[in-house]
Amino acid sequence: MASKKLTEICLQRGIIYPDAEIYEEMSGFYDYGSIGTKILKKWKDEWRKFFLTKDNFHEVTTTNIMPEPVFRASGHLSHFMDPVVECSKCGNKERADQILEQELDENFEGKTPEELTKIIEEHNIKCSSCGGELKEVGNFNLMFSVDVGSNKQHKAYLRPETAQGPFTAFKREYRANRKQLPLGLAVIGRAYRNEINPRKQVLRTREFNQAELQIFFDKKHLNDRQAFPEIEFKVKPVDSKEQTATPQELVNSLNLPEKYIYWMAKEVKFMKKLGLEDIRFRELSDEEKSFYNKHHWDLEAFMPGFNDYEEIAAVHYRTNRDLKLHAEESGQNLTIASGDYYPHVIEVTFGIDRNVYALLDNALQSEDDRTWLSLDPLVAPYDAAVFPLIQKKSLPKKAKRVKKMLEKKGFSVTYDPKDSIGRRYARTDEIGVPFAITIDFDTLEDDSVTIRERDSTKQIREDIKDLPKILRQLKHRKKLEEVGKVI
Amino acid sequence: MASKKLTEICLQRGIIYPDAEIYEEMSGFYDYGSIGTKILKKWKDEWRKFFLTKDNFHEVTTTNIMPEPVFRASGHLSHFMDPVVECSKCGNKERADQILEQELDENFEGKTPEELTKIIEEHNIKCSSCGGELKEVGNFNLMFSVDVGSNKQHKAYLRPETAQGPFTAFKREYRANRKQLPLGLAVIGRAYRNEINPRKQVLRTREFNQAELQIFFDKKHLNDRQAFPEIEFKVKPVDSKEQTATPQELVNSLNLPEKYIYWMAKEVKFMKKLGLEDIRFRELSDEEKSFYNKHHWDLEAFMPGFNDYEEIAAVHYRTNRDLKLHAEESGQNLTIASGDYYPHVIEVTFGIDRNVYALLDNALQSEDDRTWLSLDPLVAPYDAAVFPLIQKKSLPKKAKRVKKMLEKKGFSVTYDPKDSIGRRYARTDEIGVPFAITIDFDTLEDDSVTIRERDSTKQIREDIKDLPKILRQLKHRKKLEEVGKVI
Repeated sequence: MASKKLTEICLQRGIIYPDAEIYEEMSGFYDYGSIGTKILKKWKDEWRKFFLTKDNFHEVTTTNIMPEPVFRASGHLSHFMDPVVECSKCGNKERADQILEQELDENFEGKTPEELTKIIEEHNIKCSSCGGELKEVGNFNLMFSVDVGSNKQHKAYLRPETAQGPFTAFKREYRANRKQLPLGLAVIGRAYRNEINPRKQVLRTREFNQAELQIFFDKKHLNDRQAFPEIEFKVKPVDSKEQTATPQELVNSLNLPEKYIYWMAKEVKFMKKLGLEDIRFRELSDEEKSFYNKHHWDLEAFMPGFNDYEEIAAVHYRTNRDLKLHAEESGQNLTIASGDYYPHVIEVTFGIDRNVYALLDNALQSEDDRTWLSLDPLVAPYDAAVFPLIQKKSLPKKAKRVKKMLEKKGFSVTYDPKDSIGRRYARTDEIGVPFAITIDFDTLEDDSVTIRERDSTKQIREDIKDLPKILRQLKHRKKLEEVGKVI
Repeated sequence: MASKKLTEICLQRGIIYPDAEIYEEMSGFYDYGSIGTKILKKWKDEWRKFFLTKDNFHEVTTTNIMPEPVFRASGHLSHFMDPVVECSKCGNKERADQILEQELDENFEGKTPEELTKIIEEHNIKCSSCGGELKEVGNFNLMFSVDVGSNKQHKAYLRPETAQGPFTAFKREYRANRKQLPLGLAVIGRAYRNEINPRKQVLRTREFNQAELQIFFDKKHLNDRQAFPEIEFKVKPVDSKEQTATPQELVNSLNLPEKYIYWMAKEVKFMKKLGLEDIRFRELSDEEKSFYNKHHWDLEAFMPGFNDYEEIAAVHYRTNRDLKLHAEESGQNLTIASGDYYPHVIEVTFGIDRNVYALLDNALQSEDDRTWLSLDPLVAPYDAAVFPLIQKKSLPKKAKRVKKMLEKKGFSVTYDPKDSIGRRYARTDEIGVPFAITIDFDTLEDDSVTIRERDSTKQIREDIKDLPKILRQLKHRKKLEEVGKVI
């Protein structure tokens, strides 16, 4: 169960809520509200800044609907399945592995329908809704199909991952970008899966946001890489116990290409940049791995609300299989002319909604009757709030001028003149605004304001003209005590 | 027909190309490549900056898939139709109004199926593909349907416009944003229509990008507005001839609310900001109007490639119908508590792909053997290119340092060391990079560089340290001659 308090804040404060909620229709669809969208946008901007700075790494924008041959080639038509079992009495369909997990408290992910049927028979498991006899376990394809054309001329699907667009567009982009490798093609966009059992708020939905970067390279450079970031992180291999290590130590202890470890380290670095500390890389077993991956490690973040680690990103070594299969299916030549080979691909992939949720869940703080989101300033919905102490004299006018000045300097600022100052602090605390600037009667005399820090509630008093410099320092994690005298 | 030259540049330079092109499958689906996505992103950023700066105007992010009741309420289930006629011999389906337009060279948009059937009989029109007898004209719903759930429990649709999300989320957002009107809720995202005959490159596709702003307000403020922008523009009312007028003059000459005219003027101002000059507002006839609009004027831009004006944006006065119908369908109370009324809505809507295409089409320039895109710096894929004259000595190193310095100052810069300088100019001209900075041997002596302007090919020579200031001035449309001495 998600944190009740967090869910409530998300609903009340315009962060995240069910789509078309007034109809109470379908589970697994969520909207980002006016505050949630600001957080989402900051996350995306930071992701672009971090992952797309190299010269030959670009974002592309590919369609959500793609024709069937794409997914016949990629393998999603035949492999992108969940095991489903139907009740012979009430017709209810459920995920077979999940019924078993509930009944037997064991993980059955990755088992074949035949294996699951056998276990159901052995343990005499019945329908969880009516107690009826369960049929044989079958396969259920998770893609949403779409008929295109007035005569349904084309069978198509909503993409189950953003990755396929960059593969089908690879040759064009390779040519447009001076035929150089490595070439990085990223998509930030939606993906769709007809989940049988959507759950855990935005962690498992039917329509979700991904940021995926496909890095195309010559296989002979599989162990070439840039300097490792100076960092250490937890890894949990399938066949040995959890360890904390630097990337260089992992080169020695894990049987992974150096380029792969480099991108693991980069993902960790990005997480830490956004303030997410309790994370680990977990290797997936052969049964758990996605069908297209040679190496598959998930980046998991601890989520206090679920009291568990949850997947929020991953590094996939997809080899050259996607390009090769698309070449075979389409009859087009997708090799690199200068060597007659298919580039290999490492996929750096993020579930955006899961990332945002991990940030929110870890940011939730309570003390006495105070609740706040301790979001890092980089992903806070606003850089600062500006409040006139009361709606009298020229305080509102002065406050609006301060807001405007800060906006001109590139800061995002929210303004609120109503209610007691305490209630206004409480409201911006709950959406994670890191600093609140209050204009009071002294301001009219000496042009100074108070800056209140969300996490500590400490305040400093500074000149308006110094605000941009101070906010910039605070945004880059300088302590309040270091930039001014706490009052 | 789209401009052949532009289509070729779009394909070759990573701007826009058909999705999943290697399969040659479905028409009406386009990708933005590595360069196109940069233009797209700049357009979106400018749109946000221009339309979402007011305090209570926010972006929200709603799902692409929405359940059937949403579209039963909105009217799309029963009204969002195209008239289709099937051949009784070959089974081919076509748009009836378009067959007639082709045959009779007249506009039949908005006619009912009955009317169209009658005209087909009167003129004895046959199937355009086999010459067979045509059946009666029927209605074809343009929404893509999607089955959700393992038992297809939910009938749903891909949204045909982004507008419905803000309507179903209105009550939550109204509460989260301190119960204040006007409230603006914008969505920048995808919409989908199963067009029978996709055409004109990205002007009529089956999956497209919209930026739509729903402005909720109390009807009694229908004529309240902020100061009109100082601007004049062309309007073409249904029942009178084209005129050029200021917003204030339109208040007197057109029967439109002042708030409506204000948003027309704002759209015009935005277009001019991005460098689009030849535009006009055209009033739609009762037959052409969308079923949900009381007032409906399209903003059209002249497109040289089509030698015609094409719709790229619009202002819609939707009244309070959407909220009222959702309240009825859902049984929820969607009125404003403090007055027991449904807010009215003006929709400020942009087809993003059509906007990008209008910019590209109007930017295409040719002279002798030179071709370039004269894109405004605000929407150019890069702010500048940096070239080492040749790949010798420390020129590349120096050039990379200049690139890095400019990036630190917030400019987007492309770097290219290969081929002759002329070919490199030609390449960046074709994607519309407004300025090229060349590092030559003199640079190593005196730290000066040449800045070449894309449109005039004129050059100035300036100190590296002055580059940020100069580029900023040029970006804000200062002339090259005003910032330096042309050499």
